[in-house]
Amino acid sequence: MEAKIISSVQNSLVKKILLLKEKSRERRKTGLFVVEGQRELELAQKGGFYFETLLHCPEILPQLDTSLISKNPNAEIVQLSKQVYEKVAYRETTEGILAIAKAKEHSLEDIQFSTKTPLVLVAEAPEKPGNVGALLRTADAAAVDAVLIANPKSDLYNPNIIRSSVGCVFTNQIGMGSSEEIIGFLKEHQIKINCAALTASKNYAECDFTEATAIVVGTEATGLTEDWLQNSDQNIIIPMQGEIDSMNVSVSAAILIFEAKRQRGF
Amino acid sequence: MEAKIISSVQNSLVKKILLLKEKSRERRKTGLFVVEGQRELELAQKGGFYFETLLHCPEILPQLDTSLISKNPNAEIVQLSKQVYEKVAYRETTEGILAIAKAKEHSLEDIQFSTKTPLVLVAEAPEKPGNVGALLRTADAAAVDAVLIANPKSDLYNPNIIRSSVGCVFTNQIGMGSSEEIIGFLKEHQIKINCAALTASKNYAECDFTEATAIVVGTEATGLTEDWLQNSDQNIIIPMQGEIDSMNVSVSAAILIFEAKRQRGF
Repeated sequence: MEAKIISSVQNSLVKKILLLKEKSRERRKTGLFVVEGQRELELAQKGGFYFETLLHCPEILPQLDTSLISKNPNAEIVQLSKQVYEKVAYRETTEGILAIAKAKEHSLEDIQFSTKTPLVLVAEAPEKPGNVGALLRTADAAAVDAVLIANPKSDLYNPNIIRSSVGCVFTNQIGMGSSEEIIGFLKEHQIKINCAALTASKNYAECDFTEATAIVVGTEATGLTEDWLQNSDQNIIIPMQGEIDSMNVSVSAAILIFEAKRQRGF
Repeated sequence: MEAKIISSVQNSLVKKILLLKEKSRERRKTGLFVVEGQRELELAQKGGFYFETLLHCPEILPQLDTSLISKNPNAEIVQLSKQVYEKVAYRETTEGILAIAKAKEHSLEDIQFSTKTPLVLVAEAPEKPGNVGALLRTADAAAVDAVLIANPKSDLYNPNIIRSSVGCVFTNQIGMGSSEEIIGFLKEHQIKINCAALTASKNYAECDFTEATAIVVGTEATGLTEDWLQNSDQNIIIPMQGEIDSMNVSVSAAILIFEAKRQRGF
């Protein structure tokens, strides 16, 4: 099959890629998003994502990996001139490969647990893509059973989230929903809700995280909403002794998740 | 005393502020840097920093805090028009206050310990200002006895470090030096060197951090140099079970530091 070659930045596919990268509305409308880079594509493939279009710049990457093509037999293969590639790629990326991928639903009903004592990370309305990325990296490293995002502020396929997660957005089982829906989900599955709160008095290190456990973190600015604090089984605090009573949200989450991992013997 | 009022962006003091914000070379040459924001100034003052110039925009902040003036009796006080203030301030800052402050030396000889079993965080050549900021926030929250930065890639007074540390750059006791100097310092003070390394086999949670302890972290890309790994008392690893064998450096450091805090009973 001869690949289509695009050398004009005015091409409609080029415009579509740029729109998908820039506009979350466009991603939601089409159910598509853009993945960039060798490792990210591999992780997305491993995570069960399907590619609609595979694009490469032959001047940087002469050949697409054959397994990529064989596992996405219906994907259109497109070549980009270097000028066009540079227009659609992140400045830092020089790997010469990207794809248009189909988004997942991330509905709570699709979440599956392979254990009776799952460890779940919940983040309420995380704001910065960099924080979401760092949370997903921690969740991957700890191999938590699911990441649940309550009242999400953006879709997961923001290029900055994909990038800052170094692809962990594809390796985690992720569910999204309103706080109410997620609280309902956790209660239904008898998962104990542990809310990190500066107003709490219970030291996290004195809690038992060996049973079915959700660690819930809010935003740095305002913490968790009352929805969570009132539906919590235990509000917990990381004792802080400095001048500033706050840590980065991804840092707090990691301390709590890895305390659970320690208690569970990793 | 009548305050000087600056309403031209061409003013030499305005140019000096912009240079100090943008150029680390200028900061090093003059030994000065710029602090912005009410809380940051308070923390800098509390941390023993001295202000050479106090600047405010009367349209946003009509009066400077009197304690600020009384504690910096020799500081020149300058008023900025709103246009000039907007030129020198971060876009996000609307507090109407900034200062030119004198940098500290951060030499290892100045580090003082008030305990025989200090907990010290060491970062080798941390790259991104955001990571340095997050490390300093964690160090503040854990009230570690010192933060040591080995082979620093930049000075501490980069505006992005100050901002991402939310002022914790002023609340920590920070020493800087070459890796060799810091290793020498730790050995001299009989502080046990624990190096976080992906090549290590010892699980961090099985280590005793209750004695004089240094937790040493490297860069995300390349980890710690041989200098550290070969002069280490113990190389330690955070067991990871995901697809990606890496976490954000400030996240890893926080997991290790708070395990030490847990063992020490906070």
